[in-house]
Amino acid sequence: MSPYFSQRYQDLKAYTPGEQPKQRKYIKLNTNESPFPPAPGVREKVAEEVQRLNLYSDPESSLLRQKLAERLGIGAENLIMTNGSDEALNYAFMAFCDEERPAVFPDITYGFYPVFARINRLPFREIPLTADFRIDPRDYDGIPGTLFLANPNAPTGLALDLDVIEDLLLRRKEHILVVDEAYVDFGGESAVKLIDRYENLIVTRTFSKSRSLAGLRLGFAAAAPERIQEMKTMQYSTNPYNVDRLAQAAGIACLEADEYNLENVKKVCETRSWTRARLEEMGFEMTDSRTNFLFVRHPAFPGSRLRDALREKGILIRWFDQERIRDWSRITIGAQEEMETLVHAVQQLLEE
Amino acid sequence: MSPYFSQRYQDLKAYTPGEQPKQRKYIKLNTNESPFPPAPGVREKVAEEVQRLNLYSDPESSLLRQKLAERLGIGAENLIMTNGSDEALNYAFMAFCDEERPAVFPDITYGFYPVFARINRLPFREIPLTADFRIDPRDYDGIPGTLFLANPNAPTGLALDLDVIEDLLLRRKEHILVVDEAYVDFGGESAVKLIDRYENLIVTRTFSKSRSLAGLRLGFAAAAPERIQEMKTMQYSTNPYNVDRLAQAAGIACLEADEYNLENVKKVCETRSWTRARLEEMGFEMTDSRTNFLFVRHPAFPGSRLRDALREKGILIRWFDQERIRDWSRITIGAQEEMETLVHAVQQLLEE
Repeated sequence: MSPYFSQRYQDLKAYTPGEQPKQRKYIKLNTNESPFPPAPGVREKVAEEVQRLNLYSDPESSLLRQKLAERLGIGAENLIMTNGSDEALNYAFMAFCDEERPAVFPDITYGFYPVFARINRLPFREIPLTADFRIDPRDYDGIPGTLFLANPNAPTGLALDLDVIEDLLLRRKEHILVVDEAYVDFGGESAVKLIDRYENLIVTRTFSKSRSLAGLRLGFAAAAPERIQEMKTMQYSTNPYNVDRLAQAAGIACLEADEYNLENVKKVCETRSWTRARLEEMGFEMTDSRTNFLFVRHPAFPGSRLRDALREKGILIRWFDQERIRDWSRITIGAQEEMETLVHAVQQLLEE
Repeated sequence: MSPYFSQRYQDLKAYTPGEQPKQRKYIKLNTNESPFPPAPGVREKVAEEVQRLNLYSDPESSLLRQKLAERLGIGAENLIMTNGSDEALNYAFMAFCDEERPAVFPDITYGFYPVFARINRLPFREIPLTADFRIDPRDYDGIPGTLFLANPNAPTGLALDLDVIEDLLLRRKEHILVVDEAYVDFGGESAVKLIDRYENLIVTRTFSKSRSLAGLRLGFAAAAPERIQEMKTMQYSTNPYNVDRLAQAAGIACLEADEYNLENVKKVCETRSWTRARLEEMGFEMTDSRTNFLFVRHPAFPGSRLRDALREKGILIRWFDQERIRDWSRITIGAQEEMETLVHAVQQLLEE
């Protein structure tokens, strides 16, 4: 490390995003993107907004928040818009953790949580999932700190029922619970309806997956107005204009055509069922995923072996070099044709 | 403050962006935006990219960096693209300051510097400008830490010659110097040409002002490859995809039509001269601005009085409630017609 680099971060290991190949054309089942383009209307609204790009964006994202609030049945004051839900999560680490309030999260979950803790120099504690990768709420009893739960969880795909979330909110009234709902639209139950009743609840969501806008960066958090204000203090202390004009315009257009997105979610869920059945027939073990990916294991092709073999066949999937899940693979649900290609490729592998 | 909010930030005062009015139509001379729309070609390129928004952006911004590197006559490895230059500045605070290396900057400069220091819980030291608002490099002798200099400085508009920057780099070899060149295209001399020779130099720039993309958020830092890598570690630990697909596409289109931007810069500089002469005739005192704004003072309408009076007439300018500059106002150079309206409004005020 150089003599100029901060002593604080000498041991920091940054997050590793999934591969974004530039050269060869792969079937990309490695980063949980939607196989469908954004909603009709986004293109026109975005193009129209370009002529105003010389002016800063509204740092309050007022129109977009209004529209989103209506859709969610909450108030605009319950929302903060962010540059992807990663930014909302980072604001939550910043605003609601400190030396006395460590971040708490499962040992197997979104890999960015420990990075957010480290970049903010926050103490954190990882609580093991059960042997079958479930979150047991009793494991969090008596553990102080701000709890981050992805629901559904990644990469396991498993969802917690809303009454478990509510139970955690009640048992941990003096602690914030951040529910990361990046994948909720594919089969989870959203905690947004609880924000009016629980001051200690933050729900983060994204337009990346179910709304086909991964390349745009648009996310949000929903919470009690005081919590939103506390997160806004973080936003105004780092990058007030971070949700740019085109993102605000695209978000509005996307909500105006939300039936299109719901239809796509339905397709993904159908394709998930189909893929699941085919993979099970071929001897794969898997979790009960409520997301746009499957978390799978095959005795003949554990972990990185499946990833490497499929890559040879032009298909990218995700493998995590991490204890407990080294034998597993995460496969994004793409379009039906893509999954047929995947199934065919796996069949070939097993026959070779 | 709530029982949930981090103890770390109980006293944090966030940055206050300039007003972005939503209702009445004002002439906006308060946030240093360009009066001209983005370059021709941006709209088409952005619209075309919308169909790919379901896929994450290239976290390396490879194509954009390549094009920008060619224009600047440096290597792509010398560049990191960021969500506005604010983000580049924040990464520099994070990567190059710590408890032993405080942030150092003038007492009158971009108001976000102390906020970046506070949000990162970094010690910082403010060095007074001279009585005539100049940066005297000798004032920084023997002061350890990472030095942040806006060049040209804001809101004073004054520029340092490049040999002064070079002298500082040599005198402070063991310390990083961050040169914030948000306004350099309007009459400053860029330090980018020095990055090959000085490992302790970081130059930050933005597409917001001279390239009419304030509403998009696109900035960058140029430095030695090792410094860029250190800043990338910060990026990959906060928000790897922060420069979205539309921003990358717009940036490329903007560089392909850069003559348009240069022409606009020329117009702004001509209008600055014209405005300057008119205001001087009316008894205004002002600095020798090398930016797209003027920093002015009038005995009859000091500071907030001028702001309030012009606001009544439908013109927004910026006033800073800050020691030493309370009598001054910052006026963005808009289109020629806008400045004619301003001059007329000021004339009226002085005659009333």
